[in-house]
Amino acid sequence: MKMRIAYQGEPGANSEAALEQYFGNDAEGLPCTKFVDVFEAVASGAAAFGAVPVENSLTGSIVDVLDLLRRFSLSVVGETVLHIEHHLLGLPGVDIDEMTEVYSHPQGLLQCRSFLQTHRELRPIAAEDTAGAARQVSEWQLRERAAIANGNAGARYGLEVVAPAIGDCHDNFTRFVMLSKTAQPPALFNKAAMIFELEHRSAALHAVLGVFADAGLNLTKIESRPMVDPPFSYWFYTECSGPFSPEEQLALTGKLESRIQQLRVLGWFDACVANPAARQKR
Amino acid sequence: MKMRIAYQGEPGANSEAALEQYFGNDAEGLPCTKFVDVFEAVASGAAAFGAVPVENSLTGSIVDVLDLLRRFSLSVVGETVLHIEHHLLGLPGVDIDEMTEVYSHPQGLLQCRSFLQTHRELRPIAAEDTAGAARQVSEWQLRERAAIANGNAGARYGLEVVAPAIGDCHDNFTRFVMLSKTAQPPALFNKAAMIFELEHRSAALHAVLGVFADAGLNLTKIESRPMVDPPFSYWFYTECSGPFSPEEQLALTGKLESRIQQLRVLGWFDACVANPAARQKR
Repeated sequence: MKMRIAYQGEPGANSEAALEQYFGNDAEGLPCTKFVDVFEAVASGAAAFGAVPVENSLTGSIVDVLDLLRRFSLSVVGETVLHIEHHLLGLPGVDIDEMTEVYSHPQGLLQCRSFLQTHRELRPIAAEDTAGAARQVSEWQLRERAAIANGNAGARYGLEVVAPAIGDCHDNFTRFVMLSKTAQPPALFNKAAMIFELEHRSAALHAVLGVFADAGLNLTKIESRPMVDPPFSYWFYTECSGPFSPEEQLALTGKLESRIQQLRVLGWFDACVANPAARQKR
Repeated sequence: MKMRIAYQGEPGANSEAALEQYFGNDAEGLPCTKFVDVFEAVASGAAAFGAVPVENSLTGSIVDVLDLLRRFSLSVVGETVLHIEHHLLGLPGVDIDEMTEVYSHPQGLLQCRSFLQTHRELRPIAAEDTAGAARQVSEWQLRERAAIANGNAGARYGLEVVAPAIGDCHDNFTRFVMLSKTAQPPALFNKAAMIFELEHRSAALHAVLGVFADAGLNLTKIESRPMVDPPFSYWFYTECSGPFSPEEQLALTGKLESRIQQLRVLGWFDACVANPAARQKR
């Protein structure tokens, strides 16, 4: 029996491609409407794991997901970096000259601006998401309608790539983390994700980062998020690179927790390989 | 002649309320469709200043605005904190029992969830923005249609407050900065906004923040944003609190620029008073 992995979006979504890239053939995606539904599916045991995006290399952090990482008591147990591809997809055998309308998520349309500006005969129309646009084009069966989505969505809905890789920026990557109800068994890992709150006093952030630096930790990401009370106070999402042995994990957790306000280690896990493209399956 | 101040949104928008709160009666708002239009209006001289939101106390940074602060060469010359109010607005004389539909920006509807859950007879309908919803309700002249917007929009479009302050969280503030083509003349100011890039080496952020700490600077905000090349590298938007005399500004700029990669001071200006509510006009 395959493991069920919760993800946000419909079949063919980038999140589904990410979980397949990470878990391979052992996994079966459980599509969820909202990010919070993914967290709830993992917390309730309806899914063994969840796959959620934490940042995109062009647009930055997916802050709704960071906020949910703080709100739920789930562990981060892995990560993967997905190359985001935008293809022009159409019904089989259709030529680009026959097309007059192109459907995609507004972000997808925006990231293909150059292509759309040189193909003014294609009217861009906003859809709920990229995979949903591909599904609709498949359902409509109208030769003049195209979608911008990834190859995963195209294959799933029987569409053909009419024009490949039409995004303005080829270096478009989204990093996903894998969620679990329980932390991983102790082992050597090379990455950690943590959250902490910040005291309101001079140089507080420098002091906190000094604790990380003293512990020999290299911060690879830091993101501030607002706390509601008091207004304009912050908590932080951070990631550090290892390696960390089980003994080091224990010692570091003790040291950080004793010196940093409300510190919580979300998980120790293995970083995705340095070159994201090297892990691509498609 | 009044100064023209560019803002995003239509008349009655929170950004318009913010610029009126900051500039008072000397100002005349210049509505712009997009944030980039505000920056262009200031850069071209079509507007004397621009007023743009940088963060909300519930939802965090407005990252599109931070990205534009980096992209354009404008100065930050001031800030103001606006109390965000959500009122239920209707045509004059209409009772809440007559209402069946309520229009607002999705974020406005979301932030009034408790009220809408206890008033299930009101069907929530998404609109482009809160002020636009108020304008439409005024134009439709249908007694059953309501809007959720601020008092500014209500007054402008001749609507009455049917139920005041229906937001879930009363502590809802948005901080705006004022943009100018030129920096302010030297004076004593108590805040600074800066951006810098981060080198890819161990403990780099701690080292950079150490430069700020050595200079006696207290960071009040730090936000990381992605650089496109290489993927998952970052630049940072930061704010520090003073006071800073003109001499200190000169010395600090020299010290920081010599030690931090691609540092740019966006401006020295006066912080909004500590208690935002104290500056409220409405």
